[in-house]
Amino acid sequence: MSDAIITLTTDFGLDSPYTASMKGVILSLHPDARLVDISHSVPPQDVRHGGWVLAEATPRFPAGTIHVAVIDPGVGTERKIIYAEIGDQRYVAPDNGLLGRLARRAPPTRIIALRRREFWLEPVSDTFHGRDIMAPVAARLSLGLDPARLGEPFQTLFELDWPKARVEPRQIVGQVLWIDSFGNLITNIRREELDSIPSSSPVQISCSARSTDRLVRTYAEAPQGSLVALVGSGGELEMAVVGGNAARGLGLGLGEEVIVSW
Amino acid sequence: MSDAIITLTTDFGLDSPYTASMKGVILSLHPDARLVDISHSVPPQDVRHGGWVLAEATPRFPAGTIHVAVIDPGVGTERKIIYAEIGDQRYVAPDNGLLGRLARRAPPTRIIALRRREFWLEPVSDTFHGRDIMAPVAARLSLGLDPARLGEPFQTLFELDWPKARVEPRQIVGQVLWIDSFGNLITNIRREELDSIPSSSPVQISCSARSTDRLVRTYAEAPQGSLVALVGSGGELEMAVVGGNAARGLGLGLGEEVIVSW
Amino acid sequence: MSDAIITLTTDFGLDSPYTASMKGVILSLHPDARLVDISHSVPPQDVRHGGWVLAEATPRFPAGTIHVAVIDPGVGTERKIIYAEIGDQRYVAPDNGLLGRLARRAPPTRIIALRRREFWLEPVSDTFHGRDIMAPVAARLSLGLDPARLGEPFQTLFELDWPKARVEPRQIVGQVLWIDSFGNLITNIRREELDSIPSSSPVQISCSARSTDRLVRTYAEAPQGSLVALVGSGGELEMAVVGGNAARGLGLGLGEEVIVSW
Repeated sequence: MSDAIITLTTDFGLDSPYTASMKGVILSLHPDARLVDISHSVPPQDVRHGGWVLAEATPRFPAGTIHVAVIDPGVGTERKIIYAEIGDQRYVAPDNGLLGRLARRAPPTRIIALRRREFWLEPVSDTFHGRDIMAPVAARLSLGLDPARLGEPFQTLFELDWPKARVEPRQIVGQVLWIDSFGNLITNIRREELDSIPSSSPVQISCSARSTDRLVRTYAEAPQGSLVALVGSGGELEMAVVGGNAARGLGLGLGEEVIVSW
Repeated sequence: MSDAIITLTTDFGLDSPYTASMKGVILSLHPDARLVDISHSVPPQDVRHGGWVLAEATPRFPAGTIHVAVIDPGVGTERKIIYAEIGDQRYVAPDNGLLGRLARRAPPTRIIALRRREFWLEPVSDTFHGRDIMAPVAARLSLGLDPARLGEPFQTLFELDWPKARVEPRQIVGQVLWIDSFGNLITNIRREELDSIPSSSPVQISCSARSTDRLVRTYAEAPQGSLVALVGSGGELEMAVVGGNAARGLGLGLGEEVIVSW
Repeated sequence: MSDAIITLTTDFGLDSPYTASMKGVILSLHPDARLVDISHSVPPQDVRHGGWVLAEATPRFPAGTIHVAVIDPGVGTERKIIYAEIGDQRYVAPDNGLLGRLARRAPPTRIIALRRREFWLEPVSDTFHGRDIMAPVAARLSLGLDPARLGEPFQTLFELDWPKARVEPRQIVGQVLWIDSFGNLITNIRREELDSIPSSSPVQISCSARSTDRLVRTYAEAPQGSLVALVGSGGELEMAVVGGNAARGLGLGLGEEVIVSW
């Protein structure tokens, strides 16, 4: 257990004092905690975006790492703040769907609703529970606090709807779920689903009015500027423009339908 | 004293080598120093913005933390570079107002103007004292160097004007001092000042042509899209649009007058 | 040797899970590795930009620091991934020119092409060698792995063309090679080249239709808004607008010719 690593994922942006306030609170309680920034550029209040980042990145960390995630539009309302164990990782986050994508891959083995105020800062503000509740709880967990002391166990995380691809006789119909910083359009069509396509069949991948028959292995296999489809590093089908930005170049966005046909 | 934590706050942006150069200089002198990024996205040369971030975030850190702040439009001129102790924190920064907002809350207990070149890099460039003076001084302080050896004590920090709210018989008149990454407009009207309002009085909060009577406790208490006022996590009155961006939506900016009337 | 410091330089941007995935992989193999972010805002696939950042920042780090750099448009193709020793630093990067600017200053003392898959993650994706090859190799090097075991030595790095300034009888002709976050235009004209100008001669520095005779020592020596030239912190001539943004204000960009005449 590397219990002294604490990661931070927020929508606080880069020019504000909010993230640093949380770092200060954690280090004040546990000066040897080792802080790792995951992202502070999750778009404001975009729980779905934060959930994607957490699902892709956090399972790579050492077992026992504590991940604090604060994308929390419901701060100060009755939404719970939870401690959860998912896979071999530990999370402190609002129960607003942020951990839902992770939980679909590996059901949480433990969820506790934070209730015990003696582990929080005093006073607790109504608008910044990341600093006043989640940061001190993470610091105390990293010092060995038994999670059972934090509050009451409960069973089911709040989940957002993450649409799945539909496999039909001669096509797979999916959606763009994520656009990365290169403009690659990442879909919900999984590598396993593509395996159902007979290897002898020519394949067409289309999105909106654009389509390609270049199902490649890596970006640089096709000429600069061409539209390609490939299975990306997370195991999902993505569409990319070689050396370019597919989202911008094609004017495509989140939720766009992607059809693989053969 | 957690003397091995060194934080960095700059206006260097994210795609340049400047911040990393400072990190390299610090780690070369003190490989075990523990670096914490506060922000490198302070708008270029915006001393006021940097001063706000420092005032909000740095008091949260463990006692003895060394905060290096480089928003330094006067680099290479006769402005001083200082070491200061404020509250239980330590600072290395240009004396250009950057520490002024901090100093208004807790007067510095010690200020030293850096003079002794043997603690700096050699040669010292004329345009990057963050790397050549502040970074090595911070590293040496974190190794235990007595601050008295750095230069000469002096008394008073250079201060920028930070306007205060004006409390009148039936209104409080303040200004927008900060806009955060959510577009919330944070004012100089303090919670204590609002306490002077009789609890039975209906309250109106207005800014430019917009006003609201929703003085709420937290963002999600009012419907999506509605304008609210609330006391934020720093103790100041702020105006926000629920689930939206008040600054962008209302076209309001820094310095705008905010009036609370009853 | 501070072999436990690993820096990261990428073009992954700030809102994606890619950088954090690499951090997780490194920490899973070496939980005590100390991660330092150099930049993740290198423009997508801009090897030249990344090479500049590495050349400016990394030589400042403690001897033996491991720098992982992932600006890798050719990922998955036959381009090599290399381990290199340059100066007293160590690098893991694609051999696409990213280390070329460093190598021009100090020829690599050792280059090894990574070949031995037992030090990589299993499976290796076709699109994310930063996570699957470079991160685990860096982690293992930081644990003391002998670089000789990684693959086969070879001799010459792939290099991009970095134009040099041309010194003529009464002028020096250079180019803008870099624009920093302040909008300063940094050229390839070195301090040493300027030393050839007789000190009695008035000097003119021009770029496109704009010129100045203010060759100053530091930014704040001339009035706000004026165009100045000075030798910056990296030793190159740069053009700047005092308190402003020269690139934006003058509409000048990378590659623009700069002429110093006397």
